[in-house]
Amino acid sequence: MARAWHLKSRPSGMPTMDNFELKHVELPPLGDGQVRVRNLWLSVDPYMRGRMNDVKSYVPAFEVGAPLEGGAIGEVVESKAEGLKPGDLVQHMNGWRDEAVLPGRLAQKLPELGAAPELFLGVLGVTGATAYFGLLDTAQAKEGDIVFVSAAAGAVGSVVVQVAKAKGMTVIGSAGGADKCEFVRSLGADQVIDYKAGPVLKSLAAAVPEGVDVYFDNVGGDHLDAALALARNNARFAICGMIEGYNSGHPTSLRFAMRIIAARIRLQGFIVFDYFPRMAEFYADMGPWLANGTVKSRETVVDGLENTPEAFLGLFKGENTGKMLVRL
Amino acid sequence: MARAWHLKSRPSGMPTMDNFELKHVELPPLGDGQVRVRNLWLSVDPYMRGRMNDVKSYVPAFEVGAPLEGGAIGEVVESKAEGLKPGDLVQHMNGWRDEAVLPGRLAQKLPELGAAPELFLGVLGVTGATAYFGLLDTAQAKEGDIVFVSAAAGAVGSVVVQVAKAKGMTVIGSAGGADKCEFVRSLGADQVIDYKAGPVLKSLAAAVPEGVDVYFDNVGGDHLDAALALARNNARFAICGMIEGYNSGHPTSLRFAMRIIAARIRLQGFIVFDYFPRMAEFYADMGPWLANGTVKSRETVVDGLENTPEAFLGLFKGENTGKMLVRL
Repeated sequence: MARAWHLKSRPSGMPTMDNFELKHVELPPLGDGQVRVRNLWLSVDPYMRGRMNDVKSYVPAFEVGAPLEGGAIGEVVESKAEGLKPGDLVQHMNGWRDEAVLPGRLAQKLPELGAAPELFLGVLGVTGATAYFGLLDTAQAKEGDIVFVSAAAGAVGSVVVQVAKAKGMTVIGSAGGADKCEFVRSLGADQVIDYKAGPVLKSLAAAVPEGVDVYFDNVGGDHLDAALALARNNARFAICGMIEGYNSGHPTSLRFAMRIIAARIRLQGFIVFDYFPRMAEFYADMGPWLANGTVKSRETVVDGLENTPEAFLGLFKGENTGKMLVRL
Repeated sequence: MARAWHLKSRPSGMPTMDNFELKHVELPPLGDGQVRVRNLWLSVDPYMRGRMNDVKSYVPAFEVGAPLEGGAIGEVVESKAEGLKPGDLVQHMNGWRDEAVLPGRLAQKLPELGAAPELFLGVLGVTGATAYFGLLDTAQAKEGDIVFVSAAAGAVGSVVVQVAKAKGMTVIGSAGGADKCEFVRSLGADQVIDYKAGPVLKSLAAAVPEGVDVYFDNVGGDHLDAALALARNNARFAICGMIEGYNSGHPTSLRFAMRIIAARIRLQGFIVFDYFPRMAEFYADMGPWLANGTVKSRETVVDGLENTPEAFLGLFKGENTGKMLVRL
């Protein structure tokens, strides 16, 4: 018997433990082309909040009463799929559970990069690719640019800071609280602002009176508004996340929207899925950067399947530094 | 003695007549390279409101106590400038007055397109170029796209509708009131929504349930929010104006900002000045379109220099259909 977290009810506003239920599930016998995987690491990510609403988006909504899904790293324990054998480490989307049966084609063998397997849920996975492509492709950030990153101590933000420094940019990161700010500084950020210590706009204006060329948005709200206020001509914004609004339901209130016109600002939303065909580019840069210490990985690890919802909820309380993971 | 409108005081919110003063001014004797121009037509445009605030933008703020400026068409009455002689019709930026002395290099002789001179303040001028480049270059609109245009009965919007139709797009225009909606329909719009008759989002969703590929924003606010709500994947927004916010000082409140991410929306601000080096492209298309009736010009004409502020204020009350002009 496997155990899997189910969506018990749709959250309204901030989710609570009542929205989740851990249930035993009977796994079917292995069919042709299938593998049985024992999960070792689970990913919890802010975007999952959106899937808990009953709305059409780029990924289908979770169903009430059905198991939740998410990125996971596991070990193949039984296989009827070509190219996969017991002991292989794979990445797949049947997270939020301890064991899964799935088609082998949906279980991707981890690339041989000599890295710890859990990194493929973070710096070397979707998280890292989000930072890499969002900064370099969506925002077209280049050497010499002044880059502002919100949630810079978070999973994606902490990689953005490091990629920007590796590419010769000036980086201003925002994070909440002294410890996280210190962490962002340790990643190489040139300036760090503590959004809990005062209004973002005031802090950003003090940190970079000359303005910003690029804004990597993980937060929305006041951070986005401050970036609009301080955008230089032809600034490019990569809109990756707006965690501030995921639970609040409040409209985004922008005092500086009109600067989009005068400063010729470009805001571009993106989804990392669109870049999956280009993952080779990402590995080619990120593999060596990790190996030679240019990029460091940082995880916040919560132990035990039963604590998965707490880990997820922690994302919205800023409990993670770097990538939030669940270790089984 | 010439007469020129001066900025008497900076408006706060909606300007009033008290902010303007018509004063006699002594024109200097003509220096080398200068021309004296008698104005025939003056342009009043929403962007001028921004110049009445004391803020740095893409054009300098008007000074309190100094003459206002703006696009104008006039006749050269005296010239010490090479290439310009009395009787020449020229376009220049010394509007809001009946007569001006200026360097000849700042007075552009009207191109020989066989069109009425006032069209060079509208369809054949900055207004038309704003519509043309904003739609085709900034928003990268192309044949088959579904295009939503706000203020579609206005100076820029009415040209956007016609250029979009000329290029084989489907067009939804928004305008206020039955007469304006009828006008937008007469320009060839496939659907017209009356923003005074109900919430923009509801009307737009009813008009194009399949969503929009391109949004040409002249308004901001609820129109922008509705376009975000109904944007299709990879939609492009040309952010040209946000007249709704020019006087209100209210923040822009967006309930659907988060759709920027899921739908990979691009919002791009632009200023027509950046396209001036490419005006030849614009004339090459717009000249023939006007000549063969593909594009029609529509103006709202106010007579008399003394009525210039009323014409300007009328822009914010929706008193113009097409381009608002003052005839001297």
